[in-house]
Parts: sequence; structure tokens; C-alpha cells
Amino acid sequence: MRKIINDPVHGFITVDNPLIYQIISHPYFQRLRRIKQMALAYLVYPGAVHTRLHHSLGAYHLLSLALQELIQKGVDITPEEKEATQLAILLHDIGHGPFSHALELSLLNTHHEELSLQIMQLLNNEFKGALDMTLLIFQKKYKKKFLCELVSSQLDMDRLDYLARDSFFTGVSEGVVGYARIIKMLNVVNNQLVVEEKGIHSIEKFLIARRLMYWQVYLHKTVISSENMLTQILKRAKAIASSKNLFATPALQIFLQSQSISQQDYLETFLKLDDTDIISSIKVWQNHEDFILSNLCKRLVERRLFKTQFIHESEVEKVYEIKKKEILKNAIISESEIDYFLTRASTSNETYNEMNQKILIFTKGQEVKDISTIENSLLVDTVLNPTKKYYICSIEGFS
Amino acid sequence: MRKIINDPVHGFITVDNPLIYQIISHPYFQRLRRIKQMALAYLVYPGAVHTRLHHSLGAYHLLSLALQELIQKGVDITPEEKEATQLAILLHDIGHGPFSHALELSLLNTHHEELSLQIMQLLNNEFKGALDMTLLIFQKKYKKKFLCELVSSQLDMDRLDYLARDSFFTGVSEGVVGYARIIKMLNVVNNQLVVEEKGIHSIEKFLIARRLMYWQVYLHKTVISSENMLTQILKRAKAIASSKNLFATPALQIFLQSQSISQQDYLETFLKLDDTDIISSIKVWQNHEDFILSNLCKRLVERRLFKTQFIHESEVEKVYEIKKKEILKNAIISESEIDYFLTRASTSNETYNEMNQKILIFTKGQEVKDISTIENSLLVDTVLNPTKKYYICSIEGFS
Amino acid sequence: MRKIINDPVHGFITVDNPLIYQIISHPYFQRLRRIKQMALAYLVYPGAVHTRLHHSLGAYHLLSLALQELIQKGVDITPEEKEATQLAILLHDIGHGPFSHALELSLLNTHHEELSLQIMQLLNNEFKGALDMTLLIFQKKYKKKFLCELVSSQLDMDRLDYLARDSFFTGVSEGVVGYARIIKMLNVVNNQLVVEEKGIHSIEKFLIARRLMYWQVYLHKTVISSENMLTQILKRAKAIASSKNLFATPALQIFLQSQSISQQDYLETFLKLDDTDIISSIKVWQNHEDFILSNLCKRLVERRLFKTQFIHESEVEKVYEIKKKEILKNAIISESEIDYFLTRASTSNETYNEMNQKILIFTKGQEVKDISTIENSLLVDTVLNPTKKYYICSIEGFS
Amino acid sequence: MRKIINDPVHGFITVDNPLIYQIISHPYFQRLRRIKQMALAYLVYPGAVHTRLHHSLGAYHLLSLALQELIQKGVDITPEEKEATQLAILLHDIGHGPFSHALELSLLNTHHEELSLQIMQLLNNEFKGALDMTLLIFQKKYKKKFLCELVSSQLDMDRLDYLARDSFFTGVSEGVVGYARIIKMLNVVNNQLVVEEKGIHSIEKFLIARRLMYWQVYLHKTVISSENMLTQILKRAKAIASSKNLFATPALQIFLQSQSISQQDYLETFLKLDDTDIISSIKVWQNHEDFILSNLCKRLVERRLFKTQFIHESEVEKVYEIKKKEILKNAIISESEIDYFLTRASTSNETYNEMNQKILIFTKGQEVKDISTIENSLLVDTVLNPTKKYYICSIEGFS
Repeated sequence: MRKIINDPVHGFITVDNPLIYQIISHPYFQRLRRIKQMALAYLVYPGAVHTRLHHSLGAYHLLSLALQELIQKGVDITPEEKEATQLAILLHDIGHGPFSHALELSLLNTHHEELSLQIMQLLNNEFKGALDMTLLIFQKKYKKKFLCELVSSQLDMDRLDYLARDSFFTGVSEGVVGYARIIKMLNVVNNQLVVEEKGIHSIEKFLIARRLMYWQVYLHKTVISSENMLTQILKRAKAIASSKNLFATPALQIFLQSQSISQQDYLETFLKLDDTDIISSIKVWQNHEDFILSNLCKRLVERRLFKTQFIHESEVEKVYEIKKKEILKNAIISESEIDYFLTRASTSNETYNEMNQKILIFTKGQEVKDISTIENSLLVDTVLNPTKKYYICSIEGFS
Repeated sequence: MRKIINDPVHGFITVDNPLIYQIISHPYFQRLRRIKQMALAYLVYPGAVHTRLHHSLGAYHLLSLALQELIQKGVDITPEEKEATQLAILLHDIGHGPFSHALELSLLNTHHEELSLQIMQLLNNEFKGALDMTLLIFQKKYKKKFLCELVSSQLDMDRLDYLARDSFFTGVSEGVVGYARIIKMLNVVNNQLVVEEKGIHSIEKFLIARRLMYWQVYLHKTVISSENMLTQILKRAKAIASSKNLFATPALQIFLQSQSISQQDYLETFLKLDDTDIISSIKVWQNHEDFILSNLCKRLVERRLFKTQFIHESEVEKVYEIKKKEILKNAIISESEIDYFLTRASTSNETYNEMNQKILIFTKGQEVKDISTIENSLLVDTVLNPTKKYYICSIEGFS
Repeated sequence: MRKIINDPVHGFITVDNPLIYQIISHPYFQRLRRIKQMALAYLVYPGAVHTRLHHSLGAYHLLSLALQELIQKGVDITPEEKEATQLAILLHDIGHGPFSHALELSLLNTHHEELSLQIMQLLNNEFKGALDMTLLIFQKKYKKKFLCELVSSQLDMDRLDYLARDSFFTGVSEGVVGYARIIKMLNVVNNQLVVEEKGIHSIEKFLIARRLMYWQVYLHKTVISSENMLTQILKRAKAIASSKNLFATPALQIFLQSQSISQQDYLETFLKLDDTDIISSIKVWQNHEDFILSNLCKRLVERRLFKTQFIHESEVEKVYEIKKKEILKNAIISESEIDYFLTRASTSNETYNEMNQKILIFTKGQEVKDISTIENSLLVDTVLNPTKKYYICSIEGFS
Repeated sequence: MRKIINDPVHGFITVDNPLIYQIISHPYFQRLRRIKQMALAYLVYPGAVHTRLHHSLGAYHLLSLALQELIQKGVDITPEEKEATQLAILLHDIGHGPFSHALELSLLNTHHEELSLQIMQLLNNEFKGALDMTLLIFQKKYKKKFLCELVSSQLDMDRLDYLARDSFFTGVSEGVVGYARIIKMLNVVNNQLVVEEKGIHSIEKFLIARRLMYWQVYLHKTVISSENMLTQILKRAKAIASSKNLFATPALQIFLQSQSISQQDYLETFLKLDDTDIISSIKVWQNHEDFILSNLCKRLVERRLFKTQFIHESEVEKVYEIKKKEILKNAIISESEIDYFLTRASTSNETYNEMNQKILIFTKGQEVKDISTIENSLLVDTVLNPTKKYYICSIEGFS
């Protein structure tokens, strides 16, 4: 069997393994077609409507290229290991719900990585243990560490794909990554994934592209605003649904009202949820009698968004209090409801974390070194320190 | 005022006119963010999830370039005409509903062009006549014919954008069009839009790219299957909703039950409808007690699609009867319900229609000629005849 | 061994066979670095300065992809056959001299295909018979016809690369070809190269792109002018060199004066010749005492080119006579010298030649059919007839 | 008048000013068609054969876009200033000779910037003072500083074009720069060119892309080797030409023998020199009786290059002495000739120089700040320090 999928980012993606094709065709995986990779970022970047399914296929494709490269270089990888690693990356995001970040802050009580694991276990049962090795690799427990690192590390195929894909669909060309070159430079030394020395500038460029995508796209002020609004909407809807009748699609209804639900029911309902449940319900809530809910929903649907302002840590309290007074002045809402319209928070990003799964360079002198210890490295202290930014996100008048 | 929008297809789109910005910000226009340009084609081409809003902005951008070019060449276009033409193209698709083609075959009774006109009139009232000239241009009644032709003809900026955009997002590189060159070759002679002679090969290439996109993408067999299934689902849902209770989002509910509804209510409800209403409802219908509805919905959601087969006209009846027998054999459905699972139909496309708003070439000898009459033209009889293909679309067993 | 070469058109080109690497490193092949693929076309398209070496590597790369594809589909291709076919395409243009077309019309007496063959034989001697099979494939004598067809036919990897490459470097985006898709659709039936039916639109697009590149680029009027001027320059230089002392680089000198020269000396000198010999000599000739030579050279160097005019066959004589009178009027040159400044000629191109090595389509019904016999084919009679254009190329005043 | 030039990097370049068109058509400018922008880098990156003419046109194009942007933002720029700035960037590289770097180290005694100035003055005489303002801008003496900065500074349109162009033609995608976004973010405050704050990440990316291009492309070890070999060849040829007869094209001959030559003759001869003079002469020198000259030339032509090794400063002397012994061991050359085959040197590059024409950011708080003083800047001390690398470049055996 051999299926070819058109991908504007990587060209053609080939699937030639029946088990992998079955997993891709499974309703759990097909559901990712209805979940946008970048949540509400399309409110700023209209092209950013690509899906988690597309990203998962892309990461699978890059991984396949990387495995082919390593095998050609003589690294020992069995057909079973190849399949298991391909499945692991294909399923690495299977636990994402719609608008994942906002949903985790409002309705869910389980992190998406944990959900990915549980869903893989469900599939493993269904496929009678065919995913045993996949589960080990996903949990970083498999003996060949470099396979785990290809799936999840600071230089995994997941990151390579999402940076390439997100810059492609947003049109932010600065995020373009030379993934072909990086993959050609991969190798394995002492069971660890390494990059040959002449690939070092490509890695630096990759880390800088990622840094840029964080500040320019993922943490764009308008994106922060819209995701904050969505979080508040879901919190308010949950508060209302506990006492009143509130329209929602059946799957969403369960999450709005979930007091006690068995883990299996939880998972099953979760697997029915996607972007359309959230958005179609929010559209209805625009006309709800609750002022807070309808106001927030109307704004989000019509794209009249809160304003986010980055400010110095020391100013946060002061600005927060001023904004609060302004908002409460007109007495439409009470002080206890202020959180729905005003948030102080921080966000941070690190270009490279030397504590974490390091990026290792294999020098011409046959040594393995952390990239941040290479002479003339771009990744010096200041760049290594995570950048943390404080912000206030608030409504600008109720009109 | 000056807003810049990132577009992966054209680079940056600039909006620097307050009225145009107000129209873009209007909920009617923002609604197009939730309607996919290519309906269900994403089931074949996973990248094809771009929206009608994005296409409308792109067409506006190309039109702006074309107007700039013509003005530089000395064509008389006033600022008012520029704005009106920009608005006309921005709003040319405003009457599209979700999954437009399937919806028009099942729930709607008005064509999207007529709806576009009605919605533009609504906006014109709201903006106190500011769209008067826009309406004339959209209806091809404005005196400067070439402005109307830029908005709608066989070489309009709408087609230029959708071909470029659809090939970009599907990854079908064969559809790429050299729009920059075409725009540079535009001119106006005797109030008609013409292409300078040295642009002739670019036009030929554009027509062939369009032909290719039709057969490879828009009329792809799997796309035909899924759109046919969606049409059958909506027809069945409408039939059920007339007598039984059926879950649907409020806006969709009205269309399912619409017996008599005033034109204004019709328009208002229509303007609330988008892809999420259809998809979120179909997901719920997967568990409906009606076998036909639930079976069709489950298949569509899980992407187990009908099979479409192109066959010779003379074979249609024979193949249809065979398929019909096969389907009815197992007696799950009755003969009167066969249309839900088996369709015979045809589809056609013409590369260039010489009867229609022609593409005119301005020769070096200063003559204006129909492109199909140019010596050595690619657009000879056989190519001019519309290609019509007959097909059977059918379920392959109920399992 | 494994070398990676950066190619802006195809990404990375990998060479992992020692013999192939030796051939690439050979001075005969390296000489192609100094020969522009598109001769003087850079006078119109400034980016078109890419070399025959680059094109040969690109064609080798596409061929390698095609062989990999066929092997994966189960076609029997031995490692020796793979290597031999790769060498055949790598060397298919080795017999091109600088500005090949103009040179063949003025100084050479052997066609470049014949020279390619002779140089391959030289290399085969040097490499002790390692190119025996390569020679068979290049001469279309090898038993596995499809290997010969990949190297030379209406759908060979040579054409695929030069169209992609030439449109890339000229910036004529209309020539872009979806070569990745075409390669994925290749197969072998009855020892013949075929294209699977669903690739038919890509082939049509490829033929149309080629047609467009011919008229818009290769046969661009200014390109015709400059190549005609170069031909006249070399003819005049040869005429002068027979009787007078004329500066030239040593290799060019031999061709200018070649009365009788052994075939081996001929080949050896030919292998020393490249673009720099021609251009550096022409620059010196700008100051030669012969009016015709210096005038033509000065014009070409300073890009003050002849004018080419396409006209109807029936008009050729008339226009030619008028031009001739105009040119001779001022009495700078005599009638016998008119050919240096005035040419009447024709040029033709055929989109697809059904007589030749046909492009075969493998239908879903498992039949093999010539692409021009497929229903609804674009390649109907009118398109199949070669297009022939007549032109006059002339100086416009001697000032 | 209006000419359109196809550029694969930027699309279409428009020239619509008669004086600018005359300058582009002038033989001094057309000469840049025969000088490769990246000298011998094509020995590593086969696509890097683009010319200085193409780059000059590209920089002119980006400058035109930048001026249009600034004018739209209300910056006062007169038509005369526009033209003069366009001419200044068009001519900024007019003083480059073939293989500029190697030539300046061997045959020339004037720096290319000084030559550019002298040639502009020649043109200014020919055009009767039409380039007066151009000369002021090129020399940074014009009152509107920002116009000078657009032509030459750490963020000039020259750099923007060459980074974009060089990465395009080499295929090193990591050098791709989001120039469109940078240009949209330009503004003028207090007569200085500034970048609006939200463009800061694009600037960081631009500086990192430049850093990467330096180490991966411009200072690639094989590029260093080949340019060093060319320098040695020209030095040896000059030494020989002083006493013996040596073939060379006439223009090159003058530079090889130049003892005393008037400045005007110097300039005139310089303006005749291009890549073809150097390469066609080197090809002949392959057979010269002088062992050193012929050996070096043969190696360069056949691409059997020296080896360059980056080493720590402290090791330079030691490694140099070892290499020297190795080379002299076989006694083919004498110790006094060692420099022709062995070089120790260093090369350096700085990502950003805060001492120089700074890159200024215009903050949302309306302040103008050096980019290196912005909070969380990537451009911290370590990155600001120029990176200096020491290397040894040597022959590896005479065989």
C-alpha cells in the first residue's frame, strides 16, 4: 500500500505502512482535522487556519526523512523501531483539545501530554499491543535514547515541523527554518542524537527563528487578548451552566457541567470535542441573557478584542489598579466579576534551555559538546536566560 | 489609517481607507473567517482550510495592484471609483454560506450571487449610500465597463486570487499563476479591459492552470463524493426536522424547518450561519436514531467516503442499475431511499468561453482581438468546447 | 563517500558513488562551470547566468529520484544500471561548447550530441570501460528502453530540469513545472516509461509550460537578436583570421583558423573552450580595424542590439528588401556584406510531437495510450502542429 | 518610458526614469554583467553565478520600495532626491573589478569605494552635472542623513539585497531575510532612519542571517582557499610579467605590467576589465613554463583546491611551521616561494557594530534607541564582539 498526501510545506508525504495508515484513518486521529494548530491566532494571521492533523503528518514526514538519513549513515534502526517512532510522533499531539491552552485553563483538569498518553493506550488496546514500543518511546523509556529525542527534545521533529508550518501559513517568513539542512546534519553518538559541527549555524538560526515566532506570533498581543477572552468565556459559561440551562453541543455540555464523571467517560467525551463545538456554542451565547457571557462572546465573534499591554514588572500593580477603577466606574459589573474583563499575567520563552535535553554538537575533533559551550556561540548567558514579559489584558470600555 | 495584514500568498496586504477598514471589520465580513473557501476539499488536501475572508482580502489586494498599474498607464480612475471597485471585489463573495454548493442544493433557495447583492444593499443602507457605486459595479451597470470586468469576467482579480491561493494551500503547484506579470500587462482600450500582446502566453498558462485545478482539485473524485454526501445529509436532516425533534444550532434549525419566513429574517439568519453550525450538528447526528442520517454523518465525520467513478455517458444507466441492485440487495434501505446513497450526475468545465465576457488581446498593431482568434492560439475549438464528465457516486457496502 | 551540493532549485543534491564523483571532478565536466546554460539570454533575463554544470547536476538529481521511485514500485533496475543511467544523464550535455547554437552556426562542424558521444568515449577509455553501459544508454541501444527514455525522450529528466531551472533563474514563474508530482506518477509497462493516468494534467501543464518558455524566453526577440549578432561576429572573425592577425585566446585561435586539424586535436581544443574565450576576445575586437567586426562587437558588449521582428511568411521578402535598401543607403557597407547586419529566418517549436518518442499514459483500465489520443486531451491537432514563426533581424542604423 | 526587468528574487523591477535608464544602459554599468557578485563562491555553491549588475538593480528596487514607503508616511522627499538616491545605490558598486577582493590584494592599488567615486565623477561629467546630488549622497555629505543611510549603513538596501540575493542563488535558505517587513517598518525621526519597534525581531533575524551567511558562505573554507589561490596566481603572474612575455588579454596586460600609468588611463583600463579577462588568461597560464604559475592555475581551473583549516590563534605559528616543512621537504619550490602555497591569516565578522552607523529603533514611547540597548536584546556583549578566526591555507602535496 502507498498513499501520497499533498503538503504545501513539504511537498508530498508518503504513507506506505498499513498500520500507520490505519492509525491515520482512525476517528481519533481524523478528529485533529477539526482542531486548528494555532487556536485563535487566525484572528491576527488570517492564513493560520491549518490543523493539528496537518502538523502531525508533517512531523511524521520530517521524522521519516531523519530516520532515512540516520540509517544511511549506518545507525542501527530496525523496521519495528522505525514504525514505532513514526507512530509516536504521529500521535504526540493526539491529546490536544480545541483551543488547547484556553480549554486547559477553564474546563479540563488533565494536561494534553497526559491525555495523549491515555489515548495512545486506548489505541494500543484496540490494536492489540501493536503500539507497545510506541508508548515506550513517547514516554522516553525506550533504550535507544536518540529515537525518543527525535520525538521530543529541543531539536525534535515536532518543533522543526511546527516552525516551518506556522511560518508558512502565517506568512511570517522570518520563521522559515532550513530543516532539510538540519536533518542532513543529524547523527547518533553514544546513543544520543547529535548535530555535526558544520550544522551549527543552522541550529542557531533555528533557535532564533523560534524565538522570533514566539514574540511575533505565538505571544502576539492580539493573540494573547483573544485567548484570554476565550478562557473567560468558558469560565463564565461553566459558572452559568451549573445553575441554569445553557445551549451547548452535547460534548461541550458535559464538560460545562462535569461534576463527577468516570475517567473513561471523560476520555470518550473529550474525543468528541473540537473547534466547532466551542465556536458554534459561543455564537449562540452572544444572545444569552447573562451580560458578561453575551458581551464577551459578541466581542470575540465580531473581533472587537481586549487590549494587551506589555509593561515592566514593577508597574503591573499600579496599572492594574488604574484599569480596574476605570472598568468599575460605570458600575455595569461588580468588583467580584473584574477578572472576566481584566487580567494581569506574565508569559515567558526561552531560546535555549541548557538544563533540559540539550542540543549536542559533534565536533570535527570527534567530541560531543553542548551547543552553548561552543566557542563564539550565539547562545550566551543573556540569550539563555528565559525572557519573561508581564502584561495587562483589559477591555476598553463596554460600548 | 493604515493596517497591514500578513498574507502567505501575496506578502503584505495594505488597507489604508477608513470605509474599507470598517467594511472589513463588520460582522458580516468577519463571518467569512468561519467559512472555508474550498468547502470539504480539505478531506483530500489537508492544507485547503483557508477561508473566504482570506480570499476576499487577496482579491482586493490584486485589484488594488491592477488599479495602480492602470492609473500609472494613464487610465482615468477617480478615487471614488477606486474605492467602489475595491469594495465590490471585497464583497463579491459575501453571499456565500457554509459549504455553499451543498447548501444551495439542499437548504437554500437563493443563489449566492443574489445573496451577495442583498447583503451589499443591507450594508449600503447601514452606511447611508456609501456603496451606491459599488452596487453598480457589482451588477455590471457602471459606465466604465473595465472596472466591472476587473471584478467579474474571465480574467477578473477574483479568479487570479483563487487560483493562486487554492494552489498555494493545497500544495498543487501546477495551479500557480504568474499573476504579477498578468497585472503588469493589463490596459484599457475603448473602455474595455485588455491584455497587451506580450502577455498572451501568461494568459494561456492561466487558463490551463485553471483547467488543471478544476480536474485535479475542485472536481477531484473524493471532493465530489464528500460534497454529495453532505448534500444528502442536509436533505435527510430537513426531511426529518419537518416531523421530529432534531438537534441543530439555532441558525441551522431555522433553515431545516423554514416553511415560511420573511426575506429579512431569511437574510438575518443566513448571516449567522457558518461552517461550525453544519459540522457541529453533523457530529451530533452521528448518533441519531434515523439509520440513513446517522450512517451518512458517521461516514463523513470519520472520512469513510462514497466512491465516485467517472464513466462514459452511454454507460451511466447500466452502471447505475447495477449499483442500485447491489445496494438494495441487503434490504437495509428501501428503493425510495436510494438517492441518499447513489447518485448519477455530470460535471463540466470550460477552459475558455468565447461567448462570455471575452479575454481581449491588444496587439502590437493596436488592434483588439479575442484571444481565441489570435494566430497559433492554444484556445482552439476542441479546447473551447466545455468538457463534460459523467459520474456515479455511491456507497460501497453499509459495513 | 557522500557529498552534498546546495541547489536553490532542488534543495540538496547528493552524490554517493565514487565513480560518479570522479566524473564530476574531471576537468571535462568542471569545464561546464564556465558555460552558461542559456547562452546570451542573460541580456534579457539578468538572472539567467546559471551553468551547464548546474543543469547537468540537476538532471542527475531528478533522474536519481525517478529511479528510486521506479525501484520502490518494483521495477527491476540493477545497481550497475542505476549508475550507468546516472552517468548518461550527467554527461548528456558534455559536448556543448560556449554559446552552443551560435558556435555551431559559425565555427564548429560537429553537432553537440555527436561531440557528447565522442567525449564520453574518451572518458570511457580513461576509465577503462567503466562507461560501456552508459554509452549504450546514451545511444538508445540498451535493452531496457525505459532507462534510455529517462535520459532522452519527450519526458526525460533533462527537460524536467531545464524547464524548472530556467524558469527559476529567469524569474519567469509561468515555466514552473510540478516535477515532483510527475516523478511520482512514473512507471514502467512493457519495458516502456509510462505516466499513470492521474498524472495526465501535470503532463499537459508541463508541455504548456515548455511551450511558454520557448516563446517567452528561448525564442524571445532580443535573445534571437543577440545570438544572431554573435553568430555574425564569429563568422566575420573567422573570415578575417584566415588572412590577418587577430587577437584570440589560444583555443579560440585554433577554431578561427582551423583548416585541417585531426579529430583528436579538434576534440582536445574544443575541451579547452568556454564562454570566457569568446567574450574576452570579443571585447578586444571592439577596437579592431575592420569596421564590421568592431561595430558588431561594440554593439554586443554594450548591449545595443539588433531588432527582431516576427512577420508573416508572405511578408518576409518585402520587408527584407526594404530593410536592405535602408541599410545600404548610407553606403557604409557593400551589398555582399549585408548578411552581417540583416537576416531573414524562421524558428519553430512543437508542443508535442506524436511521431517522436511518445509520452505514454497508463490508464486505470491498464491500457497504454499515447497522451494525444486520450479523451478531452489538450493536445489536439492544432496544438500538435509545430508553430513556425518567420522573422527579420536587422541593425537599426549604424550610429 | 517604462521598462520591466524580470528578477527571480524580487519579481519585477520597474525603471521609469529616463536618466536612470541611460545610466543602466551605459557601458560602465553593463560591464557589471560580466562580474560575478560572489567571485569564486560558485566553486562551492554552483548557483552563485549572479552578477554585480543584478545585485545593483535589486538594491535599486528595494530602495525604490523604501522611498515609496517613507513618502506614504509623510516624509519629505523631493523627486530630485528620489532620483539622486536611486542613482547612488545603482552606482554604489560600480568600482568593483572582477574578483574584487583578490584583485585588490594583488594588482590594484585603489579601494573599490574610491573607484566607485571616481567613476561616478566620470559619469557626472558625461551627464553634465546630473549626478551632483548623487555624489553628495554617496559620500554621506547630503543634508538629509536618512537618504545616505538608505544607501550605506548597517541597515542599508545594499545589505538587504545582497543577503536576499546571495541566499537565493546559493540555495542557503537560512540567509533568507524578511525584507518586505523591514521596509514596511522604516521611518524617519530627526533626520535619521529608524525602525518601528514592532520590527525589532525582523532586524534581529536579519543580523543573525547575515552572521550565518558570513560563516557558512562568504567565509566558507573552500571559498577562502580558492580566493587565496587566485591572489597568489595574480601575484605570480605580475612577478613574471615584469621580466618575461606572458599571455594576457590587453586590459589585464596593462595591470600586470603597470609601473607608471596616469590616473585616467588607470580608470579607463579598469573599466575594460571583467571576469573573462582573468579566467581566460588563467586557463592559458596552465601551460606556462613557470612551475608555480602553471601549477596554481591548473589546480584552480580543475578545482583541486588548497585546504583551509581554522585553528586557535595560539596554534597558528606551530601549525604553520609544520606545514612549511612538509611543503619544502620535496624541494620542488624554494623557501622564498612558500607564500604561494601556504598562508596564515585571519578573518573576522561582526554581527552588529555599535560604534558604527547604528540601527535605531523608534519605540512605542516615541523614543529613539540603539537596538543594542533595547531590553531583552539579542545583541549583547558577546554577540557584539567581532568574531575573529585564524586559519592556515595550504597546498596538500604537489601531485
